[in-house]
Amino acid sequence: MASYVFALVVLVLASTQAFATDPSQLQDFCVADNTTNVFVNGVVCKNPALVKADDFFFSGLDKTGNTKNALGSKVTAVNVNNLFGLNTLGISLARVDFAPYGLNPPHTHPRATEVLTLLQGRLYLFTKTLNKGDVFVFPQGLIHFQLNIGRENAVAIAALSSQNPGVITVANTVFGSNPAINDDVLAKAFQVDKKVVDHLQSLFWTENH
Amino acid sequence: MASYVFALVVLVLASTQAFATDPSQLQDFCVADNTTNVFVNGVVCKNPALVKADDFFFSGLDKTGNTKNALGSKVTAVNVNNLFGLNTLGISLARVDFAPYGLNPPHTHPRATEVLTLLQGRLYLFTKTLNKGDVFVFPQGLIHFQLNIGRENAVAIAALSSQNPGVITVANTVFGSNPAINDDVLAKAFQVDKKVVDHLQSLFWTENH
Amino acid sequence: MASYVFALVVLVLASTQAFATDPSQLQDFCVADNTTNVFVNGVVCKNPALVKADDFFFSGLDKTGNTKNALGSKVTAVNVNNLFGLNTLGISLARVDFAPYGLNPPHTHPRATEVLTLLQGRLYLFTKTLNKGDVFVFPQGLIHFQLNIGRENAVAIAALSSQNPGVITVANTVFGSNPAINDDVLAKAFQVDKKVVDHLQSLFWTENH
Amino acid sequence: MASYVFALVVLVLASTQAFATDPSQLQDFCVADNTTNVFVNGVVCKNPALVKADDFFFSGLDKTGNTKNALGSKVTAVNVNNLFGLNTLGISLARVDFAPYGLNPPHTHPRATEVLTLLQGRLYLFTKTLNKGDVFVFPQGLIHFQLNIGRENAVAIAALSSQNPGVITVANTVFGSNPAINDDVLAKAFQVDKKVVDHLQSLFWTENH
Amino acid sequence: MASYVFALVVLVLASTQAFATDPSQLQDFCVADNTTNVFVNGVVCKNPALVKADDFFFSGLDKTGNTKNALGSKVTAVNVNNLFGLNTLGISLARVDFAPYGLNPPHTHPRATEVLTLLQGRLYLFTKTLNKGDVFVFPQGLIHFQLNIGRENAVAIAALSSQNPGVITVANTVFGSNPAINDDVLAKAFQVDKKVVDHLQSLFWTENH
Amino acid sequence: MASYVFALVVLVLASTQAFATDPSQLQDFCVADNTTNVFVNGVVCKNPALVKADDFFFSGLDKTGNTKNALGSKVTAVNVNNLFGLNTLGISLARVDFAPYGLNPPHTHPRATEVLTLLQGRLYLFTKTLNKGDVFVFPQGLIHFQLNIGRENAVAIAALSSQNPGVITVANTVFGSNPAINDDVLAKAFQVDKKVVDHLQSLFWTENH
Repeated sequence: MASYVFALVVLVLASTQAFATDPSQLQDFCVADNTTNVFVNGVVCKNPALVKADDFFFSGLDKTGNTKNALGSKVTAVNVNNLFGLNTLGISLARVDFAPYGLNPPHTHPRATEVLTLLQGRLYLFTKTLNKGDVFVFPQGLIHFQLNIGRENAVAIAALSSQNPGVITVANTVFGSNPAINDDVLAKAFQVDKKVVDHLQSLFWTENH
Repeated sequence: MASYVFALVVLVLASTQAFATDPSQLQDFCVADNTTNVFVNGVVCKNPALVKADDFFFSGLDKTGNTKNALGSKVTAVNVNNLFGLNTLGISLARVDFAPYGLNPPHTHPRATEVLTLLQGRLYLFTKTLNKGDVFVFPQGLIHFQLNIGRENAVAIAALSSQNPGVITVANTVFGSNPAINDDVLAKAFQVDKKVVDHLQSLFWTENH
Repeated sequence: MASYVFALVVLVLASTQAFATDPSQLQDFCVADNTTNVFVNGVVCKNPALVKADDFFFSGLDKTGNTKNALGSKVTAVNVNNLFGLNTLGISLARVDFAPYGLNPPHTHPRATEVLTLLQGRLYLFTKTLNKGDVFVFPQGLIHFQLNIGRENAVAIAALSSQNPGVITVANTVFGSNPAINDDVLAKAFQVDKKVVDHLQSLFWTENH
Repeated sequence: MASYVFALVVLVLASTQAFATDPSQLQDFCVADNTTNVFVNGVVCKNPALVKADDFFFSGLDKTGNTKNALGSKVTAVNVNNLFGLNTLGISLARVDFAPYGLNPPHTHPRATEVLTLLQGRLYLFTKTLNKGDVFVFPQGLIHFQLNIGRENAVAIAALSSQNPGVITVANTVFGSNPAINDDVLAKAFQVDKKVVDHLQSLFWTENH
Repeated sequence: MASYVFALVVLVLASTQAFATDPSQLQDFCVADNTTNVFVNGVVCKNPALVKADDFFFSGLDKTGNTKNALGSKVTAVNVNNLFGLNTLGISLARVDFAPYGLNPPHTHPRATEVLTLLQGRLYLFTKTLNKGDVFVFPQGLIHFQLNIGRENAVAIAALSSQNPGVITVANTVFGSNPAINDDVLAKAFQVDKKVVDHLQSLFWTENH
Repeated sequence: MASYVFALVVLVLASTQAFATDPSQLQDFCVADNTTNVFVNGVVCKNPALVKADDFFFSGLDKTGNTKNALGSKVTAVNVNNLFGLNTLGISLARVDFAPYGLNPPHTHPRATEVLTLLQGRLYLFTKTLNKGDVFVFPQGLIHFQLNIGRENAVAIAALSSQNPGVITVANTVFGSNPAINDDVLAKAFQVDKKVVDHLQSLFWTENH
């Protein structure tokens, strides 16, 4: 009975989907309260009288992410889940590290446009190449990826237009969901033999975020 | 140079992606003007003095869609592109027909929640089965599908919370985009051999809408 | 003292008035918690860990509504009040049944545009007639009605662009409110004798929803 | 064919219906251009280089409105239609004058909450009486009215939360629409004889705004 | 550690900053609950069953504000903080009193456009003079002021497009914040000697609201 | 007559004020058309058929800004005015360079929250010090500044939650506006002698953006 919801929850874990422009703030700040058991659209705020400077502060974005994984990339997100002061403010960040030939695989941010600034290295996206200091815009919902085509590490900073942009990594969501999507469905949808689907569903699906 | 945009445009053709709650209307009606060369966020309105009753009218949703295709399903959309009166009003419809064992393949509506009402037949979704008169909610952005598991045709009416909900059919967007996504990217992302990717990219990708 | 509010509340009972485009969702789902005593703009969500598939499911929309009333029509609403999964998602449905010559009387949905699809029968609205498979758009706030002009029952499905569209049935709100609106006010407003107003206020005002 | 639209247009003339919170401004000012033939959601702006101080200025709200009409009241509106600088800014005003025993009849503003400040006289609303300096809030969409119960003129200033709040005067919209609503519909809806409906439809319906 | 927040809080006390169009209401009314310890974007609502007419009522706006202060002006605000029924409704009011030559100093409302109606006296703003019955629009965020240039008191009513418009009084925010902004910063920013900054920071900064 | 507008325009030049959360996009992309003479809320889009990849591309953010000015800082903005693809997408960037002891003076972004990431150097803000890799959030509308307290250059990347965030530099807006604000007003507001005001108004006010 709950398996539809498991599927939902898996999609949430595999990817925080969110789907709209964040509403406006109605006060100066509304720091996310990670201790509440009251659930609303967004996050309940902690008592303003208890707000500290560090609620607006995050450190360590200069640290290189660990790209020792099958994709050779790592996304370090800074959003309402770890920088509570971002609640109600409609913006977040991510640092993306790439090992040589590392891939940030095809994915979409259902609730945010991404503006990527390349700080170091060379990245390939669609048929375009980005170099140091280049900025590229991925409109909200567009499925996109980045491939490091250089022999050196690459580093990018992404700004995203939501406190909780969400990410749907296509391959993982389709073949890695739990419970699994019926293999008849995927075989027909991807025009492959059910054995191929069963094999793909049996693989370990790397998350790089 | 324009190939990134070709990719965008293909995504648009393969799927009208749109990504947010529709803004509010600022007048009684703003019928879409399909003759304008002025482009705005949404659609420019025709002169209110020229608005006719038929701008708010669509007929033929009782007709069965043609499901003679590889998927055995057909989506008949009624949105701002063919019912101009829907412009600025934040809602649209679709009729979905299924041949026996027909599939509406995994897809997402980036800008709309879908509320599906089954008028006839039996549909499987995730691990749940819908029967005649059942209603199911697919929250905005959730990747979902419907499979007709009955020996008879199935018919559903979907209500969507945008004048232009958009649809991203996962398989088509990944393997059917033009220009093609680099097969190194897809091979690494889907953990398959490049030959498999090349094969998939060579197939004809059915659109059922 | 509280009678202004009684009037408000009556208007709410007689009609859930709501007046704007629903704000955007900030998470994948936010199932309405009908047990909370915390009131916010919209509805507080139940704990995501307790969400079940049935929170997104409603059955029985194939059942004919009971039209044995003075109006000969019945509206069966499916909105956030009985399909909790619709909370934050900006859409809802209604099935409307009509006995022969049944009337869905002049009313307005203050928070939603209605897209009506006629599944069976013939309906008259303003000076237009709808037949099976016809779709008609009632822009948000427009006062509208439907009259069954056929000898047989009629059935329509309405999609509405809010989780809680609201309905103001004109006659009931004016003459059936409790406390009653001062009859001097209504006599002057409707240009009729106070006795006519008093008579109208003494009648039983049928709600068909 | 166009009569449904005539009905729409009449409702617009009899009352500018608008139905949502105004969207946000995207620039410092966007003065309404009343000469354009381009129609959008809201109003196109005049060239910022041609904007004059007087685009933000309106004079004469100290003048008493002419209450010599059947209702004994007069609404002087200051909104985007006569104070062009209000375009995109989400607010407007009205001055309401009342002769002794004058009535501002039951109506609703589909797109705005009204905050009424009584500058002079005494007004009755529902079961409450307002005196000089009293402020009362009519939530968006609530059907409301004001009756001057004093022997002297009354004057109020209303602030409304839209550049184009709209007003639906109940009696006029129901009995004064052109083309007329079918008298079978109104007779059944109001539980009166068709002759009563025909009589009411034959009357002259005063607009006080 | 908390001093950044003190600065924030001071800015809040010195001025409730808020920065966006209020979201839409999702029910008929949501009266602010000033007793809750649950904090959300906006204000939690009191139990609808306990709502009273007086929650929508404010009296005394006919009283002259006390202008015996260094500025010779007084702002009497009517917003969600003292008229709880305004919660979720996107509008508020203020009465502004001016002694002869009184000044409402340069300030901005970060979340609201202001529409000022002059009820009595003469006011100078920028290079324009307002007389009785004149209306002027200050677009959201514009820094503005009013100076009474008449020998008599002046009175204005301001309508503001937010339930909580906020006000940032420039001089007070810059020189009166606590903790003080570093005088090196202000000396460099205002091109004055640090002694001038230290003197200004030592002064008492009048709030007229 | 036009001087109020001159003041407005100056405020626009001195600072693009904008005052709300950006509305949602209604299509995949809406690249700003910088050749149109049609003005709307936001920017009209160029013909989608003419959109090029470079409409989403900006290069050179690796270049150091010229800080040879009185403030010793330089803001390089990347927003809808120079990266047209950002239109309707609700986000923008800025690179901020600081010479040793350089100041980004007290200012506010009326339409955006700023998330600042320090790439190099040390910055002082309020009473907190940021080091390389630190991130700090300035909630929308908060007046803020950054001072380089290191002997070396500092570089930061700011992400802002609007396509056109706007900036109001306090000192410049108050003392550098043209036409000048009446010195009686400023003398009274800042509690200084008119000669001081006249002197400040005679200075050259550096813009660092």
